[in-house]
Amino acid sequence: MNAYLDNSATTPVSAEAILAMQQALQETWGNPSSRHALGLSAEEMLESARAAIAEKLAAQPEEITFTSGGTEANNLAVLGGAAAMRRRGNRVVITAVEHASVYESAEHLSKLGYDVVRLPVDQYGRISEDDLQRAITPGTILVSVMAVNNETGTCQPVDVVKRIIHANRAPALFHVDAVQAFGKLPVRPAEIDADLLTVSGHKIHGPKGVGALYIRKGVTVLPRVFGGSQEGKIRSGTEPLPAIAGFGAAADNLPDLQTAFTHVSALRDHLVQGLQSLGDVVVNSPPDALPHIVSFSVPGQKSEPMLNFLSQRGVYISSGSACSKGKPSRVLKAMNLAPRVLAGALRVSFTHTSTMDEADKLLWMLGEAMRTLIGQ
Amino acid sequence: MNAYLDNSATTPVSAEAILAMQQALQETWGNPSSRHALGLSAEEMLESARAAIAEKLAAQPEEITFTSGGTEANNLAVLGGAAAMRRRGNRVVITAVEHASVYESAEHLSKLGYDVVRLPVDQYGRISEDDLQRAITPGTILVSVMAVNNETGTCQPVDVVKRIIHANRAPALFHVDAVQAFGKLPVRPAEIDADLLTVSGHKIHGPKGVGALYIRKGVTVLPRVFGGSQEGKIRSGTEPLPAIAGFGAAADNLPDLQTAFTHVSALRDHLVQGLQSLGDVVVNSPPDALPHIVSFSVPGQKSEPMLNFLSQRGVYISSGSACSKGKPSRVLKAMNLAPRVLAGALRVSFTHTSTMDEADKLLWMLGEAMRTLIGQ
Repeated sequence: MNAYLDNSATTPVSAEAILAMQQALQETWGNPSSRHALGLSAEEMLESARAAIAEKLAAQPEEITFTSGGTEANNLAVLGGAAAMRRRGNRVVITAVEHASVYESAEHLSKLGYDVVRLPVDQYGRISEDDLQRAITPGTILVSVMAVNNETGTCQPVDVVKRIIHANRAPALFHVDAVQAFGKLPVRPAEIDADLLTVSGHKIHGPKGVGALYIRKGVTVLPRVFGGSQEGKIRSGTEPLPAIAGFGAAADNLPDLQTAFTHVSALRDHLVQGLQSLGDVVVNSPPDALPHIVSFSVPGQKSEPMLNFLSQRGVYISSGSACSKGKPSRVLKAMNLAPRVLAGALRVSFTHTSTMDEADKLLWMLGEAMRTLIGQ
Repeated sequence: MNAYLDNSATTPVSAEAILAMQQALQETWGNPSSRHALGLSAEEMLESARAAIAEKLAAQPEEITFTSGGTEANNLAVLGGAAAMRRRGNRVVITAVEHASVYESAEHLSKLGYDVVRLPVDQYGRISEDDLQRAITPGTILVSVMAVNNETGTCQPVDVVKRIIHANRAPALFHVDAVQAFGKLPVRPAEIDADLLTVSGHKIHGPKGVGALYIRKGVTVLPRVFGGSQEGKIRSGTEPLPAIAGFGAAADNLPDLQTAFTHVSALRDHLVQGLQSLGDVVVNSPPDALPHIVSFSVPGQKSEPMLNFLSQRGVYISSGSACSKGKPSRVLKAMNLAPRVLAGALRVSFTHTSTMDEADKLLWMLGEAMRTLIGQ
């Protein structure tokens, strides 16, 4: 038995998603823009997937814009949002621990002359309300705060952001990267007063190659891709219908969130207990993190040989995020971890189908690895 | 029997492409950036698809950058290419008949202050060498000319462009939108000295949601999507591996180009003969167009009711391109068609699996439509 515990990098594609994709590939393969029967049935499939995503977000279908993935949706929110607000001010506020697709977009804004503020975080990777208060000025046009961090599971106080934006008389759009939260926590943009919110297909057992940006009715973002005016002119290009259909089916088949949360919490507790019994292990995720993500370190033991040892034995976890490919993690650095802890950081990430057996196999092999590698 | 003759809008997905996608969805679903065995096998699949596309273009794998489709690849070439060349000059030359993803990207450049020249075309939709000569100045940084027009099949003289760029001492990058040519004509960027060249998956019996930009070794385009540094930092975001695998398989299974060309030429000749025998029909495509695309008009008979009549009888063709959704065609306008001809324009597009029976069914139903609708 293998243990795939890297679900924040990507999830296995569900049977329902594969089935929906097969239908899109074999039967409903028309171009949704075509004005004949094959095009119209493709358009129906597109709109039914849009409705499925909207429903899970308690949003309207017309508030959902499909993109090629979470990265493009985050780019559209940050770059397209800031561009739309260009005349209202110059400040953009993000956190030091955003996903690269937000962080690097903000870097690009910085090069274009925007005043980008990156909020610091505490040892648990969390921003403070005080820092938000200070950073959000009347010239702030965009605030982007992720719901759940992809490396630590840390939850940010996204529910207070819009209140501060209002209190500080900022015209700012509020964007939430909810890629890691969607399908695990209730994600309802209207409840937290978000203007823009990103979700992704392949983190919820849908396929790679599709994401969506919630754009609250009345909010404008400038397009980043130009062409045939698809997706209400916000995102041109023939829609990736197979992936969109798979995303819709994955959303339709999300587990009961409460039940899944309880199950994954038990896995997390079991893992953390086991880690502590292994001896010299530090858990970097805060106790109140999303239980799906556990960051820990074997201080002094570098991540890379550990990952290789585990992978050879059918245990799949990661160091930082899959996107960082072994570079030292900017997120964990921002949490001020000691260099020895930083170099040994590992991430386990569960999904609702993860099992106690997988957690046990990980713990067992981790013990083996520590005995084997640390002696070297 | 239905007649699907709208293959320039999209093609049915081949069995080989579907099979490759199933493997990517069911087995090789890891994140190509993950450093464990599942990630590595996903990365292998990614690189093998890249090699398949490169081979068909007689290019090197490292010259292929995957995108979410032809539209994004065209955007990356035009916007990312112009941005990379910003200090070398200010002029960008395109044609009046480019696909919206090039044309609208150039419109965006125009708003940013670039001097955009749109070359006019003759009655057959073709630009002239003289106009190219005049337009390409020493301050020209990008020239984008499509290989085959998506509405008429008109072939542009892409083989002379780079010579003129050199002769006129322009630093210009030369981009070719080869979306409609790829898989139908030999497309070898090195032979026509192209720096950038766009291809798309769903026009060659691959899935929607994937395309590629050939970027000649040594040529720089600035990225348009920021994040986890995938695709050599040119296009961040988790790669759409199922779609990429399908694209690779579709490329691997392209028909013998010469045989397919002969077959489709016979279909085109049969169709054009049949159209002429229907009476008042004007063929808008030039005689030497790519035989896969035939634009024609029933003057005075608007496209929309015609398309509906045909669709109800299982015959699927289009008016302009699928991307224009019934707006009057900018491409046909540029060809100076009479308003009566313009309003009645229809496009038939073949693929190598199209049959004489399909062409006959179209001709039959077209005759029916003309008898029925023109009386109204």
